[in-house]
Amino acid sequence: MATNIIEALNWRYAVRKFSAERIAEERIQDLLTATRLSATSYGLQPYRLVMVNSRETREKLLPHSYGQEKVLQCSHLVVFAAQKSIGDTMVNNYIHSVSTARGVPESSLQGLADHMKGVFAGMDSRQRREWAHQQAHIALGTLLTAAAAMKIDTCPMGGIEPAGYDSVLNLETLGLETSVICALGIRHPEDTNSNLKKIRYDASEMVLTL
Amino acid sequence: MATNIIEALNWRYAVRKFSAERIAEERIQDLLTATRLSATSYGLQPYRLVMVNSRETREKLLPHSYGQEKVLQCSHLVVFAAQKSIGDTMVNNYIHSVSTARGVPESSLQGLADHMKGVFAGMDSRQRREWAHQQAHIALGTLLTAAAAMKIDTCPMGGIEPAGYDSVLNLETLGLETSVICALGIRHPEDTNSNLKKIRYDASEMVLTL
Repeated sequence: MATNIIEALNWRYAVRKFSAERIAEERIQDLLTATRLSATSYGLQPYRLVMVNSRETREKLLPHSYGQEKVLQCSHLVVFAAQKSIGDTMVNNYIHSVSTARGVPESSLQGLADHMKGVFAGMDSRQRREWAHQQAHIALGTLLTAAAAMKIDTCPMGGIEPAGYDSVLNLETLGLETSVICALGIRHPEDTNSNLKKIRYDASEMVLTL
Repeated sequence: MATNIIEALNWRYAVRKFSAERIAEERIQDLLTATRLSATSYGLQPYRLVMVNSRETREKLLPHSYGQEKVLQCSHLVVFAAQKSIGDTMVNNYIHSVSTARGVPESSLQGLADHMKGVFAGMDSRQRREWAHQQAHIALGTLLTAAAAMKIDTCPMGGIEPAGYDSVLNLETLGLETSVICALGIRHPEDTNSNLKKIRYDASEMVLTL
C-alpha cells in the first residue's frame, strides 16, 4: 500500500482547470465519509463541511475568491467552516455522542469532560479560534489524501476572502466561519499544470533527525 | 480504492499504548516520502519534520508532554516544526527550487514571486505564524491518512508544551517552532482503545449543502 499511496500523492496536483464533467454523487459521498474520519484533537470535530452546489451561490462567492473561476467550474465545492464557539457546549455535545455511541453513562465521562473544558478555559479566544482552524486543516489534509487515493482531482484554495464567504453562505447564523475551501472535479485535458514537475524539498532538507 | 481508504481510516485510531516493536526504517522513509508530498499553500512547505530518535532527548521532552509516556515508548516520534520567518527569503528559496527543478529561469517566475511576497506583506506577524502552522496541520492530515493506508499506527498529540519542545530541540537556532507532534509505532495488544467505537458526527450533522 506504500507504493499506492505515494503514487496517488504524486498523481495529485492543484488543478488549475477542471473539465465540465461532474463527479458521481456516490464517489463524493465516499470522499465525505473518508473526510469525516479525519483525526481531530480530542475527537471534537470543531468544524462542518459545507457543500456549495447552487450555481447562484457560487457566482456570489466568485468576487470573494480573487476571481478564481474554479469556484464556478468545479464539479463540487467544499468549504471547511470552523465552529466559532469553542468551549463547554461543544464538549457537552461530544460527550453526549460518546455516551450514546458507546452505551456508557455520561457521568462516567465526567473526568474527560472536565479535562477538555479546562483546556479550553486556559486558552484565550484567539487561541481557541486557531485551534479550530488547525483541526479544519488536518481534515483538509485527510480529504486531499483520500481524494488522491480515489483518483478524484482537487484544488485546495486558501487565497479567498473568508469574511465574504461567511456573509454569502450566512455562516454566522450557523455559528461557523470559513477556514479554507477545496474544489473537487476532473482535470481538464488542457490543464498543462498536470505535467509540471512537483516541487518538494529533498528529504535531506525537509527531514531533520535528532 | 474508496473502500480501501475508508477501511484504512476506520482502522486508524489514536494509539494509547504502543508495543515495544520498532517499525522498519524503510517503511518510515516511505511514510516521510508521502508526507513530503503533502499540499501546502503556494507549494511553499513552510515547516520541517523533526525525527526525535535519541532516547535521551525524548526523556527531556517528557516533562513538556504532560507525562504522556508515548513520547518515550513509540517507535518513531515526528515533530512538525513551522518556520518562523515567513516572507521574502522563504519565497526566494522556493523560486530557486522551482527554477532548478523545472529548468526555467528565475526571471520567468518573477510575477509569481512578487505575488507571494505581496500576500505575506499584507499579513501581520501573527497571521503569518498561523498560516505556517495551518500548513503543518495539513501535512499532519496527510501523514495520518498515508500511515493508515500503510497500516502504520499513529498518535497525533497537540497537547504538549511547544515552548518546552523548542527549547529541548534547539529549534530557535534552526528558525523553527513546534506545531504539533505525532508518535508512530505498532499498537500494543493490550491497548483496549483499539476496540472502542469511533465517535463521528453523522453526515446529516457534519455536512451542510447550500
